[in-house]
Amino acid sequence: MMSSVLRIDPKLDLVLEREIDVPVELVWKAWTTPEHLKNWFVPKPWSVTACQIDLRPGGIFATTMCSPEGQEFPNEGCYLEIVPNRRLVFTDALLPGFRPAPKPFFSAVLELEPTARGTRYRAIAIHGDEAARKSHEEMGFYHGWNTVVDQMVEAIKAGG
Amino acid sequence: MMSSVLRIDPKLDLVLEREIDVPVELVWKAWTTPEHLKNWFVPKPWSVTACQIDLRPGGIFATTMCSPEGQEFPNEGCYLEIVPNRRLVFTDALLPGFRPAPKPFFSAVLELEPTARGTRYRAIAIHGDEAARKSHEEMGFYHGWNTVVDQMVEAIKAGG
Repeated sequence: MMSSVLRIDPKLDLVLEREIDVPVELVWKAWTTPEHLKNWFVPKPWSVTACQIDLRPGGIFATTMCSPEGQEFPNEGCYLEIVPNRRLVFTDALLPGFRPAPKPFFSAVLELEPTARGTRYRAIAIHGDEAARKSHEEMGFYHGWNTVVDQMVEAIKAGG
Repeated sequence: MMSSVLRIDPKLDLVLEREIDVPVELVWKAWTTPEHLKNWFVPKPWSVTACQIDLRPGGIFATTMCSPEGQEFPNEGCYLEIVPNRRLVFTDALLPGFRPAPKPFFSAVLELEPTARGTRYRAIAIHGDEAARKSHEEMGFYHGWNTVVDQMVEAIKAGG
């Protein structure tokens, strides 16, 4: 087996790892289908009001997050690597079609592995410098990303 | 067939398209093997003094260009998409392992297609804004990228 291309650095990166009791195939579906992703992708009472997914390298991944007061925050990036049921990589450092983005913040790697109980779920946020990592941590990375995993598991169990 | 993810914009991007009389397989080899790439990748009398290639998404693509006076200019980025003998995408907007880079400049797409004569060769430089496109054009994009294609064809014919 080839070594991973990832070069995780605790000074620059944030990692969330958990085991969850839903199968990898449904986690993959929740991450890669707009109507599913909208149900869980941001901590409630925030919501996702728009989502575009073109699941191929350079394809668009865009979401619009909406605050409880109704203010919308669009995010746009593209997918980089797609290994169904195992690995999904995307970034906001490149716009769709691989175009360098004006305000790069982070790349994300989602790694899934089937376990006896369900899925080993690993999400990694990769930043360009310590300031970006710190800012992401202070925005509530651990609490937020854990909350949305709980929401995702709940949505999967509810059949959504 | 799916439409291309590329969204080429003449205000932002630069495109070089030519037909060359060498087969796609050898063009692919020239682009993806350090000892071959070193022979042609920069216009002479500049040279490539180091080259690292890890041909997978997120894998390193690094070259050190050396001026005739001996000054070295290292470049580092990563591969984004690899379709052997057809399509190679890389960027300097992401460092190896998908890490956002401090000074993104462009992404490059190489598209190859077999023809009766040899290869349809298309190289596209994708920039984030007009200033970057303009600067790349003023650095001599068309002359430089054409020169290195000539050098590459010559090196392939010489068996290198």
